[in-house]
Amino acid sequence: MTFGIIRVLTTNDDAVLLEHGRLIKAQYGIDSVTRCIPDQPTGIFDADTEARAVPKIVELGRQMEADGARALFLSCAADPGLADLRPAVTIPVVSAGSASARVAALLGLPVAVLGIGAHAPQPFRALLGEDIPYARPEGVTKTNDLLTPEGKRAALDAAQRLHEQGAKVIAFSCTGFSTIGLAAQIREHIGCVAVDAVAAAGMFVVEMLGPARGQ
Amino acid sequence: MTFGIIRVLTTNDDAVLLEHGRLIKAQYGIDSVTRCIPDQPTGIFDADTEARAVPKIVELGRQMEADGARALFLSCAADPGLADLRPAVTIPVVSAGSASARVAALLGLPVAVLGIGAHAPQPFRALLGEDIPYARPEGVTKTNDLLTPEGKRAALDAAQRLHEQGAKVIAFSCTGFSTIGLAAQIREHIGCVAVDAVAAAGMFVVEMLGPARGQ
Repeated sequence: MTFGIIRVLTTNDDAVLLEHGRLIKAQYGIDSVTRCIPDQPTGIFDADTEARAVPKIVELGRQMEADGARALFLSCAADPGLADLRPAVTIPVVSAGSASARVAALLGLPVAVLGIGAHAPQPFRALLGEDIPYARPEGVTKTNDLLTPEGKRAALDAAQRLHEQGAKVIAFSCTGFSTIGLAAQIREHIGCVAVDAVAAAGMFVVEMLGPARGQ
Repeated sequence: MTFGIIRVLTTNDDAVLLEHGRLIKAQYGIDSVTRCIPDQPTGIFDADTEARAVPKIVELGRQMEADGARALFLSCAADPGLADLRPAVTIPVVSAGSASARVAALLGLPVAVLGIGAHAPQPFRALLGEDIPYARPEGVTKTNDLLTPEGKRAALDAAQRLHEQGAKVIAFSCTGFSTIGLAAQIREHIGCVAVDAVAAAGMFVVEMLGPARGQ
């Protein structure tokens, strides 16, 4: 095992479970093992489901370290349990939210956050400011809504509006935008910076572990 | 010791030695210990000086790990010895060149590299392509040249030319640009993305180690 990916929803559908590992493998050439927390098929969507998930995330991270993971990727833009997981393991832990927000902060240009929740998740407010501009695509409230033609169009439209309002950098706070390849669409059709949360996390992992042979 | 910074030139001038640690502390709030390789007061400037430096870099990294470093930052944009250092230690190693080049590659927009050598250093050609556009400021051949008003002006002019030639992202391949704060100048006066190599490396380190208390 080179690195472990933790998914915070319970699924046995490999197309869902392995999606982020597949994206990182395609971009960086490194292999991963993905596991998901048990008994939460609808994932994390409020304070109660987060509180139930955190001990499972910590336990899963510990198991993956014991099984040989050299780094962990917590694949959720809200970074649930990150502050508990880091001190519970000895290996580096990257999370989708802080990875995306840190890259956006590094660039030092006007940033806006694009997600699907009611507001920007905590790591984005912590690293970019409580008042960071935020939008979600019209009609989109869950990641599956992004998979339709209307959902994809609404996501690009929302990015366009953020850019027109002054954003030079659009940081994704939902890993569903990675699945639909929204960053490439923004670069091509809008021309501004898009920070993909899964690609950003993969970048941190590859720099931590060193590149795959041949890279 | 939280993380160790390796400088690849020999100096006992603390203003020079500690500069990168100071920049990272100011931006990310994390402490570091800096050491330099012995007996190379003019640093690395050709194949021979690099060959002499690499075993010293590996040995210094090993010592710093033994002394408690949780991560290492090889503070040179040419990544000298990085491929040897990574397998010689068990802690993550970040280097200024690969950190800057990886962030630039992640953004997926037209990139150019700004440095002070004859051409873009190897990690930039490896990650961004052999033909990556490259420039150096007129009249600048060593980092000290950047400290004069003429050097600073020449650096901004070179960035402006790269931007006019199509670059939307300017990645620094010299840590001297960090000392003169060139990234902020580019953002203010040109408005495009500037990737500061020391700030980029600091970002990787803070994500590896977790943020300092209170961040």
